[in-house]
Amino acid sequence: MADKKHIADSLEDLGEFGLIKRIKDQIEIKNPSTIKGIGDDAAVLNPAGKHQVITTDLLLEGIHFDLTYCPLKHLGYKAVAVNLSDIYAMNARPKQITVSIGVSGKFTLRAIDELYAGMMLACERYGVDLVGGDTSTSLTGLTISITAIGEADPDRLAYRSGAKVNDIVCVSGDLGGAYMGLQLLEREKRVLQGHNEGRPEFDGYDYILERQLKPEPRADVVDFLEKINVVPTSMMDVSDGLSSEMLHICEQSGVGCRIYEEKVPIDHVTRNMADELSISPIVAALNGGEDYELLFTIDQKDYQKFQSAPGPNIYAIGYITEADKGRRMITTGGDEMDLVAQGWKAFN
Amino acid sequence: MADKKHIADSLEDLGEFGLIKRIKDQIEIKNPSTIKGIGDDAAVLNPAGKHQVITTDLLLEGIHFDLTYCPLKHLGYKAVAVNLSDIYAMNARPKQITVSIGVSGKFTLRAIDELYAGMMLACERYGVDLVGGDTSTSLTGLTISITAIGEADPDRLAYRSGAKVNDIVCVSGDLGGAYMGLQLLEREKRVLQGHNEGRPEFDGYDYILERQLKPEPRADVVDFLEKINVVPTSMMDVSDGLSSEMLHICEQSGVGCRIYEEKVPIDHVTRNMADELSISPIVAALNGGEDYELLFTIDQKDYQKFQSAPGPNIYAIGYITEADKGRRMITTGGDEMDLVAQGWKAFN
Repeated sequence: MADKKHIADSLEDLGEFGLIKRIKDQIEIKNPSTIKGIGDDAAVLNPAGKHQVITTDLLLEGIHFDLTYCPLKHLGYKAVAVNLSDIYAMNARPKQITVSIGVSGKFTLRAIDELYAGMMLACERYGVDLVGGDTSTSLTGLTISITAIGEADPDRLAYRSGAKVNDIVCVSGDLGGAYMGLQLLEREKRVLQGHNEGRPEFDGYDYILERQLKPEPRADVVDFLEKINVVPTSMMDVSDGLSSEMLHICEQSGVGCRIYEEKVPIDHVTRNMADELSISPIVAALNGGEDYELLFTIDQKDYQKFQSAPGPNIYAIGYITEADKGRRMITTGGDEMDLVAQGWKAFN
Repeated sequence: MADKKHIADSLEDLGEFGLIKRIKDQIEIKNPSTIKGIGDDAAVLNPAGKHQVITTDLLLEGIHFDLTYCPLKHLGYKAVAVNLSDIYAMNARPKQITVSIGVSGKFTLRAIDELYAGMMLACERYGVDLVGGDTSTSLTGLTISITAIGEADPDRLAYRSGAKVNDIVCVSGDLGGAYMGLQLLEREKRVLQGHNEGRPEFDGYDYILERQLKPEPRADVVDFLEKINVVPTSMMDVSDGLSSEMLHICEQSGVGCRIYEEKVPIDHVTRNMADELSISPIVAALNGGEDYELLFTIDQKDYQKFQSAPGPNIYAIGYITEADKGRRMITTGGDEMDLVAQGWKAFN
């Protein structure tokens, strides 16, 4: 990317076919199920007996990302990562993605190279082939649309609808960090934009910045579940906050739940930032979103398998009840409160 | 859609989950390979031994469509149809689509209903399941991203790269109509916008308006090819004009070609409009684009199969040569001229 000729070239000079060729030339196919990638009317796949899972996301500048504080390489990485997270949330493994972008005149070729570099890095890390897409000019800002395709043995797929009474509710990693990272970035935005003197104060907060800017989908959890031979009775990823996702699982499974506030994993950096901004850490975990951890339920008989083998950080945070018991959190003080979805509302 | 309550509801009232539910409630799954549609982290598919083909398109208001003269229902239909066309262009059959939309505040719920009604109509007509997507607010205008998934037996897939010397070049339907339809719409745009008195003058031009506003992918050609047991040596759909597509096939197959001007099928309505606007009809066919016909090459031994069975309108328009013979059209006057790609350039 340091090649001066590349920097000098503009998107106008390169044209659509030039940009596609530039992307295609960087790609080495990794999966046997990818028969044909970029370069024809459509890509060709052969899942060879596996079931496939397909998910898609549309990301719009000014709505889903703010280029003031989101470097394009991070944005590319995150755009792919959040789609892969939806694949892992089915207890499947991602194999292919397609990427469509609309870019306005304000973007240089170098900027688009950065964006794709981030996407390719995520593809590399998670063993995914970029097999197609679409490129277009846009009147305003940057539009990114990604579709991810994954594979699983049919009997290992995990839907949102399978949770049963007495199942244990588990979550990986820790929650609320991505939200507190966003709050920190918003606070320092005026400095980043150069309206204030001084530097943005990010010291000691690397962890929550990383949670916001470069989330990692939990491939390791899916690998571990296979290794210990456990299929979750239900699973989804935490993109809108624990409350919203827990309610989805309860709704689709026709059950209730109890979550223990004290069991919800929250990192100390998240707590520190929350204290500084006078936000309750549990509120960030319940309603913050964008943590891309896996929330799942398991049969009680499988619980000891988690304890017997070393694995990624997974926490039991509650249990499934009959539907008429409601969907509630038991607070540290011993009170019960209803879980309420405060997740991102697209049209508000 | 005439339900008054629906008209009264706004997108804000409905919210993202409400809109998704509203779409989901209209869907009845048609294909056995669709295991799970809308409602989980990802859709689940089982192509059961077939190869899959995947294609995606990003459509942006002001770039790819103009709502002044494109009704939303037609836009929805066309957005799906052009993606299905890419699937048929692989000699495959479409089975599923995902649809993502970004909508700004200027759109009413009724408008979005119209858009989806058009999409569902195309899905219905071509036997396709809508299995997922994403909905979002946008700062400016309408964004549509569609991914289509199709299936084919591996030995029936047709790539752009298989054309051989002496193969016959064929094209379905007729060319240049969609482009002349667009010219007519542009001419009448001031009337449509109400800047001029009078009515837009569309009489006698229904055919080219339909070619522009409501193209139909050539499912019938794919069916016919199977019926007469012919696999094209190469195939693609005509979205950027005959010149551009012919050059793609020649480039990827490493061959040259001769196309006869007099054999290129052009409808008489297209010719009439071209005469009226002083545009050469063959230029519209070569460079106009958006016809969504199928351009393909066949082995000479298969040619008689086309003549022995009744089928859709398919025309032999030329033949494949060695690469060093160039890629040329033989004009009605007997001259030879190089084919030049004048297709849509995304960044100009």
